[in-house]
Amino acid sequence: MKTHNFTVSHTSGKARRGVIKMRRGDIQTPAFMPVGTAATVKTLTTDMVQSTRADVVLGNVYHLMLRPGAERLDRLGGLHEFMQWEKPILTDSGGFQVMSLASLRKLTEKGVTFRSHIDGSKHELTPERSIEIQMLLDSDIQMQLDECIAYPCTEEDAERAMELSLRWAQRSKDAFGDQPHRRLHGIVQGSVFPKLREKSVEALTKMDFDGYSIGGLAVGEGQEVMLDVLGMTCPILPIDKPRYLMGVGTPDDLISSIQQGVDMFDCVMPTRAGRHGLIYTRFGKINLKNAYLAEQKDPVDAELGPCEAATRYSRGYLHHLFKANEILGMVLASWINIAYYQQLMADARQAIENDCYDEFVLERKEQWAKGDPLKPQK
Amino acid sequence: MKTHNFTVSHTSGKARRGVIKMRRGDIQTPAFMPVGTAATVKTLTTDMVQSTRADVVLGNVYHLMLRPGAERLDRLGGLHEFMQWEKPILTDSGGFQVMSLASLRKLTEKGVTFRSHIDGSKHELTPERSIEIQMLLDSDIQMQLDECIAYPCTEEDAERAMELSLRWAQRSKDAFGDQPHRRLHGIVQGSVFPKLREKSVEALTKMDFDGYSIGGLAVGEGQEVMLDVLGMTCPILPIDKPRYLMGVGTPDDLISSIQQGVDMFDCVMPTRAGRHGLIYTRFGKINLKNAYLAEQKDPVDAELGPCEAATRYSRGYLHHLFKANEILGMVLASWINIAYYQQLMADARQAIENDCYDEFVLERKEQWAKGDPLKPQK
Repeated sequence: MKTHNFTVSHTSGKARRGVIKMRRGDIQTPAFMPVGTAATVKTLTTDMVQSTRADVVLGNVYHLMLRPGAERLDRLGGLHEFMQWEKPILTDSGGFQVMSLASLRKLTEKGVTFRSHIDGSKHELTPERSIEIQMLLDSDIQMQLDECIAYPCTEEDAERAMELSLRWAQRSKDAFGDQPHRRLHGIVQGSVFPKLREKSVEALTKMDFDGYSIGGLAVGEGQEVMLDVLGMTCPILPIDKPRYLMGVGTPDDLISSIQQGVDMFDCVMPTRAGRHGLIYTRFGKINLKNAYLAEQKDPVDAELGPCEAATRYSRGYLHHLFKANEILGMVLASWINIAYYQQLMADARQAIENDCYDEFVLERKEQWAKGDPLKPQK
Repeated sequence: MKTHNFTVSHTSGKARRGVIKMRRGDIQTPAFMPVGTAATVKTLTTDMVQSTRADVVLGNVYHLMLRPGAERLDRLGGLHEFMQWEKPILTDSGGFQVMSLASLRKLTEKGVTFRSHIDGSKHELTPERSIEIQMLLDSDIQMQLDECIAYPCTEEDAERAMELSLRWAQRSKDAFGDQPHRRLHGIVQGSVFPKLREKSVEALTKMDFDGYSIGGLAVGEGQEVMLDVLGMTCPILPIDKPRYLMGVGTPDDLISSIQQGVDMFDCVMPTRAGRHGLIYTRFGKINLKNAYLAEQKDPVDAELGPCEAATRYSRGYLHHLFKANEILGMVLASWINIAYYQQLMADARQAIENDCYDEFVLERKEQWAKGDPLKPQK
């Protein structure tokens, strides 16, 4: 039943145009999922996020289990009700952030114990507990717990972590059980070693997950290496399941990865960059603190449809807000970035439908390289 | 002509219900004006501010002359265009903040020189330059430059500052000239000394301003003293001109001052408190960080009409946002406060129309004192 809920309607080269049918709404792919770390896509109201036409947002188990806590979130009606987001929510397993944020981590076959980076309190995350938390959050698309090791690493370390992740995949699947309205993803690991990635894919597909996430990338290996790994991983993944590249990336990363067959993405980059006054636009990256913007009456991008942060306010105003350290600047820049990412995905979907995806990628990269047409020539 | 643009339609005791007709829209009085210090009502989009039904916002000459600069604001189309606020804007003269924020101030008969608190640059503000800046901003309701001295002060100091303010009032009026679509307010000074206030009112009304501001209050004298000064000042001000109490205050200050005959207010309190998680509600002040809110599914106030920050999100969610230091918390709490202040003014206007203003004040104070009905009894 559930396997039919992802349909690829068009392809262009290896790029896929599809739709994931979920109880809470369809997810058009390729899809970018804004990150709602602690039950908020940072600085933005739910209505602002919805105005960008995002179909799905992401929640972080690590942050939410610590604050407000999974059981509390359940008592408050789940994550959708809590953050007033009615459409699908995807959650990670918590594993990645335990490794990057928590202190005094201890990893065993059973799971990982750690101390909160907030108050030092002790916690345990096992494959079973991660699924339990994701259920308490009422997450629509859940992730298995995995071990995401650092880059670079030895092949031995990568293999050990990948094998552990496979055993945790099975335990996650057993804990997940039968959930007609929810999905569970297995996570492909194996660092940059083709044989390990291959073995991971083979074992996970045998377990038959609802979708496959590709983990352990965008951890410092560079875009070229990442695309190589995707180039060998995507072709051996089942064609009838969505592929989610975790934690990626820049607009360039996204359209290049779609070219390798990736369907879903998440990244904190658009909101984090936005809080620092960096915006991603049709014209490439613009630093709103740049002096040349100070007296420009034009908006950032009059064509960025539903985002009034990009169409209504002048560049001069956005520049001023960052020079004056005004919080509204962070709000508007984050909004612009999320809106641009969504627009880019909509354009990518259109290009795949028109079977001209490679041309689309070339055109976009060219336009970004040209830079802001309103920037004075040096 | 202009004097007819303020009409008092109802009174209840000394409280007045009126309307100021302006080219950019009517201002219903009593009115609260959200403070848009640096061309932004802090943390809020223009649409959020408009949703609260505010008729007018305030801009600060001191902040705006330093950043982005008055001439630059003019080149960018004026303050309305810059911050995308179409309704009336009132500006202060800059004098108050020169005294409280700038360094190396030097006050002479001519005006005041100072160094910017931002970059140390040297500036001069005279009555003429203040009006010029307010014109460059395209401000609808402008203030004369005045000297607002600290509290407490000697009667001699208060008199000297009041007399200087009167001479600056005349110079401001001369500089303002004839502006059919704009208004200029004189500012009553004289600290807590009735004779000085009386003299200030007498001299200013002879100059015939479009409205009268009451300055030098809410500077530490306490509510009782403030109401005493208002009680002697308002009755001697012309009945056909709006009275604006500058920089005031709490909800209690507002409704008590209306009782003395004040028509207009501004204050940073609702936005500043909001950024710290303090909200003003029908039920009094609530600290969103209070633990009892953590699992409350109810909204802050389901009856606070157009403000979805108060009606849509749960108290538990708002609590969480502040515990997690999320910027969205500041946005939502500021929005709630501005919305509550506007609602309070709408209710006050209704009570004056119904000629039951004194009962209204008693009822409100009683309800605030009762506190949050959802707070557990100790």
